[in-house]
Amino acid sequence: MIKYNFQNDYSEGAHPRIIEALAKSNLIQEVGYGEDRFSLSAIERIRAAAGNPQADIHLVSGGTQANALVLDSFLRPFESVIAVDSGHICVHETGAIEATGHKINAVKGRDGKITPEEIQAVVDEHYFEHMVKPRAVYISQSTEVGTIYSAKEMRELSVLCKKFNLILYVDGARLGCGLTSSKSDLDLKELSSLVDVFYIGGTKNGALIGEAIVINNPLLKPEFRYCIKQHGALLAKGRLLGIQFDELFKDNLFYDLARHANSSAESLVGGISKLGYGFLFDSPTNQIFPIFPNRVIEKLNESYLFYVWSKVNADNSSVRLVTSWATPEQAVKDFLQDLAALS
Amino acid sequence: MIKYNFQNDYSEGAHPRIIEALAKSNLIQEVGYGEDRFSLSAIERIRAAAGNPQADIHLVSGGTQANALVLDSFLRPFESVIAVDSGHICVHETGAIEATGHKINAVKGRDGKITPEEIQAVVDEHYFEHMVKPRAVYISQSTEVGTIYSAKEMRELSVLCKKFNLILYVDGARLGCGLTSSKSDLDLKELSSLVDVFYIGGTKNGALIGEAIVINNPLLKPEFRYCIKQHGALLAKGRLLGIQFDELFKDNLFYDLARHANSSAESLVGGISKLGYGFLFDSPTNQIFPIFPNRVIEKLNESYLFYVWSKVNADNSSVRLVTSWATPEQAVKDFLQDLAALS
Amino acid sequence: MIKYNFQNDYSEGAHPRIIEALAKSNLIQEVGYGEDRFSLSAIERIRAAAGNPQADIHLVSGGTQANALVLDSFLRPFESVIAVDSGHICVHETGAIEATGHKINAVKGRDGKITPEEIQAVVDEHYFEHMVKPRAVYISQSTEVGTIYSAKEMRELSVLCKKFNLILYVDGARLGCGLTSSKSDLDLKELSSLVDVFYIGGTKNGALIGEAIVINNPLLKPEFRYCIKQHGALLAKGRLLGIQFDELFKDNLFYDLARHANSSAESLVGGISKLGYGFLFDSPTNQIFPIFPNRVIEKLNESYLFYVWSKVNADNSSVRLVTSWATPEQAVKDFLQDLAALS
Amino acid sequence: MIKYNFQNDYSEGAHPRIIEALAKSNLIQEVGYGEDRFSLSAIERIRAAAGNPQADIHLVSGGTQANALVLDSFLRPFESVIAVDSGHICVHETGAIEATGHKINAVKGRDGKITPEEIQAVVDEHYFEHMVKPRAVYISQSTEVGTIYSAKEMRELSVLCKKFNLILYVDGARLGCGLTSSKSDLDLKELSSLVDVFYIGGTKNGALIGEAIVINNPLLKPEFRYCIKQHGALLAKGRLLGIQFDELFKDNLFYDLARHANSSAESLVGGISKLGYGFLFDSPTNQIFPIFPNRVIEKLNESYLFYVWSKVNADNSSVRLVTSWATPEQAVKDFLQDLAALS
Repeated sequence: MIKYNFQNDYSEGAHPRIIEALAKSNLIQEVGYGEDRFSLSAIERIRAAAGNPQADIHLVSGGTQANALVLDSFLRPFESVIAVDSGHICVHETGAIEATGHKINAVKGRDGKITPEEIQAVVDEHYFEHMVKPRAVYISQSTEVGTIYSAKEMRELSVLCKKFNLILYVDGARLGCGLTSSKSDLDLKELSSLVDVFYIGGTKNGALIGEAIVINNPLLKPEFRYCIKQHGALLAKGRLLGIQFDELFKDNLFYDLARHANSSAESLVGGISKLGYGFLFDSPTNQIFPIFPNRVIEKLNESYLFYVWSKVNADNSSVRLVTSWATPEQAVKDFLQDLAALS
Repeated sequence: MIKYNFQNDYSEGAHPRIIEALAKSNLIQEVGYGEDRFSLSAIERIRAAAGNPQADIHLVSGGTQANALVLDSFLRPFESVIAVDSGHICVHETGAIEATGHKINAVKGRDGKITPEEIQAVVDEHYFEHMVKPRAVYISQSTEVGTIYSAKEMRELSVLCKKFNLILYVDGARLGCGLTSSKSDLDLKELSSLVDVFYIGGTKNGALIGEAIVINNPLLKPEFRYCIKQHGALLAKGRLLGIQFDELFKDNLFYDLARHANSSAESLVGGISKLGYGFLFDSPTNQIFPIFPNRVIEKLNESYLFYVWSKVNADNSSVRLVTSWATPEQAVKDFLQDLAALS
Repeated sequence: MIKYNFQNDYSEGAHPRIIEALAKSNLIQEVGYGEDRFSLSAIERIRAAAGNPQADIHLVSGGTQANALVLDSFLRPFESVIAVDSGHICVHETGAIEATGHKINAVKGRDGKITPEEIQAVVDEHYFEHMVKPRAVYISQSTEVGTIYSAKEMRELSVLCKKFNLILYVDGARLGCGLTSSKSDLDLKELSSLVDVFYIGGTKNGALIGEAIVINNPLLKPEFRYCIKQHGALLAKGRLLGIQFDELFKDNLFYDLARHANSSAESLVGGISKLGYGFLFDSPTNQIFPIFPNRVIEKLNESYLFYVWSKVNADNSSVRLVTSWATPEQAVKDFLQDLAALS
Repeated sequence: MIKYNFQNDYSEGAHPRIIEALAKSNLIQEVGYGEDRFSLSAIERIRAAAGNPQADIHLVSGGTQANALVLDSFLRPFESVIAVDSGHICVHETGAIEATGHKINAVKGRDGKITPEEIQAVVDEHYFEHMVKPRAVYISQSTEVGTIYSAKEMRELSVLCKKFNLILYVDGARLGCGLTSSKSDLDLKELSSLVDVFYIGGTKNGALIGEAIVINNPLLKPEFRYCIKQHGALLAKGRLLGIQFDELFKDNLFYDLARHANSSAESLVGGISKLGYGFLFDSPTNQIFPIFPNRVIEKLNESYLFYVWSKVNADNSSVRLVTSWATPEQAVKDFLQDLAALS
């Protein structure tokens, strides 16, 4: 009997306030394609939250879609994007970036994060027309392994990208958890001020669907809606996205949901550490990677769903546990109790 | 003061039963990416409705997305698709098909429908490697101007496409209205049996979002989910699509909604005809194109939203009125009453 | 026994002076990729001939390649190019433009030429993000049916394109014949001053291979060599192109060759007219389209190769005769004599 | 004063026999687009040399072009190709493969060669539709660093690729040198029998231009000419390619030229070794990578052109010396003498 599924942060529907908002507005007639009053209101709320009243903001369905259309819109055919090789665009998007014609310059990274030295090296190596021309840097906050860029790190990337005329783009599928981590010293306003474009993930933070792309760099704004439409990403009922983001950015719901996910993860980390287990990555967000004996993993798997991440040695493996806005306190308690019993 | 918006069939949210279904299932944990129990159930219902238990069925967000990924998946780089020049892929998808690398061979059509002679002509003209190789025929049911293919017409297209090894693909953004038109002699089972692939439109028939792609031809089935993912069309919370189609294909809701849209349009057609006005197209579905004097249009526009379609002569223009599952009887009555007063 | 092949203007190798130049320079070591001294010299000659010392000039292999890389380089993903539906990019390039992701807005044209009204109409119809955004106009000089734009026509197109921010691009596969036609009032310098970019065809005017792309608009110049390389169009031995264009633009060889092709065609037109035959198009260049009785065509075909162009009526068809720099006077005489005998 | 340029194997024109063949055939009228008698003859010669009378053979202009069109033709949109990260398609083609929409799965390799373990690992890691699907393996013979696959290695790759349904494709830009290396135990017939498709490089082995693509796998043959045309790779005067390959595969010219390049390199290796210098790679073909003190490199550079390849330590660097069919014995002697004087 499965007590709880820790596989990801999109196993449930939406936060109940969002379902209510959808129900309440349901029969109002609205303009299509993202120009409805809810989308406009959501955009104003996000502009305020990001501290950029001039930002162009577009609501789309999913992260892979957002990444492909952002990069396709901003890059000329021969231009490439630099990313860590564990990045979502490198591994888990079925080549969606390449499908738009662009190469990804993959670098190793450290703890899921790109380093300034790596960016410098790629720029140095690509110096003439027989090679692609690096024109953007893709990072995610939080990263694929739950880590976050500090304010200092993000500022350094920002300076470096400006120096090399590289577009700095942040995949924020889990931006809520990145921003509200107890280890984060970077708020949304500062992050926004440092990057050319980013997106705020809704799907993994309490929405049914939806990511909000925020374009700060004025050079990147023109004709973006053409790209959205061409990518099949312009929903007829854009209200579906507008209503959700309008609700998320009302009364700090977006942050509250992310904080809950983070604090559930922190409880797990605390309890797991207390039992003497270590972690593959030092993640301060809602994805954690404890290392357990294989026989413990096997037993845990009878009551909990989660992914085995990697083999650590003959007897131990790391697993990935993901918490979310919806994780009940009881699920965390149960897990720790069952783990203690197995330890 | 606007009394009603006849601009399109996606001005409201979803049918209340769909909202209820979303609310009711909201906190159940489900597998992601369309493998949840709701999607699986919806697929079984659609297979039964289409009379093909072997069909591969995939739920995606929107029509432009569906068209691009279907054609991108099925065509080799140099292969093209034949379509009428008023077709949605020719005009209103910002070049999404070309963006996947494929040419559209556009033909004139008649009343929004392609003719066998046109297909034959395109095939005849493209005979060697200096030209694209036609490999698919794209039609929509109902068409962009509300007309429908009869069973006889569809059978002819099917035979012709088989003869020339052309994939016959039906864009069913408004398939509900196409099938339930009082003039239709083609049911879903027969339509499905005649074509290689089609999609069933949810967005324009009572869903918040969602189109169900039905692949009948076994040669076209392999690896389609790779294409979905690459196109950014694989929703993490696939349940959002599954729950809606599961509800639509329960108790004939899908057909009931379409029938309501059609009968609302029929009432309008009847009333408008009685007042002596003609129509640009003889549409038996939920998009109608009456011709009014320009001064009548101007007056009507003070109380109703709709698109002016085309200039007919110096004094008269055609307009497009679209009804939907949500059109209140009162809106139809009001419109006819106001029109009578202006006539 | 075939006396002569009038099918096209690329049936022979190169003008003997070009073969000599290749032989003479053969063992000199040169830098690769178009930076050899011959390419640089050719570029200077073409700049002088075109009257634009600032032009960026790139030598590539063929016309389809030139068209695809020019448009791919200059257009954003959702931007389209307007062309007549008989244009080479519309019909005879196997969808090479669409393969780079761009839609062609095809219009009817008149005598192979686009009209300002057609451009205006396409621009007017494409007004929002659900449609592609027209950004370029493609024409050819001479056209696919041998006709040419007059100076007045070209000036009008230039003004219109500037007004609508459209890139005006001339496919000059047969530019030599276009410029040296006895009916032409447009020289290379004026043509160049009126357009953003064009290419000068070598393959069809005495070279083995090679087209010279001339970019006048400074906004279109940056990073073009990246596009060339990405399209597989940057020859390692760029000298092959450089040597040929250097020779062609020495001592007016380029013009002399085109004049010979045109005057051969004029002789044919004169002789054919004298025999009482008419023409499908009034072509003043090296492609002519006489209309003959089918039985005459059949007989001619025993001694001459050419394409039957189109059926004119039950008994008569048009054929295409192409002359070139290499057409011997005798071939023209023979043809006319044999035609007279059949008439 | 530069005595000789060792930068590459395409600094000269063509072998004199090729120039003569071009001159001799120059005024013969031929069919265009690769269907001329010279191309047909060349294809027959290559079929015989490769031992596959059923092979489909296509002559194109350059290597980047060949690679892009082969992979674009054979892969579905979501399919990828595995290659070593030093491979030409990974580094020096300005993202031409990605421009056709396909991801390259880059692996480290060993001495420029891919290992079976690396292929196995990529296949194992890519197991579901969120990731690209590996479908081809790209290798080059000789490699970018002059090394060659042995017959045993090639057989292993062949078996592995068959097992995993991977297309094995050999970039043969320097296949001549690969086959005629004194260390090679793999002849053209066996190589051809082991791979699905490969190309035979002309440009770097005595032609002005030209690569011959050989398709052995029948499943990959259909409609390849459509791909060639769409890629702008179908030369109007295909004779230019046909004449050259016809000559190269007459009287073993192709092999003789490659042997000369290899033996020049061997002389350099012998002389350099005797002087006590080592090499970065143990290359048995026409690209060698000796390691010299930086001050020696500086001095050599006054009389010879070559690329500095990489820094070995503070005082020493590796350089790349490339010999060719045209390298005079004297140039090798001079170089060794000058090096001795500096040592």
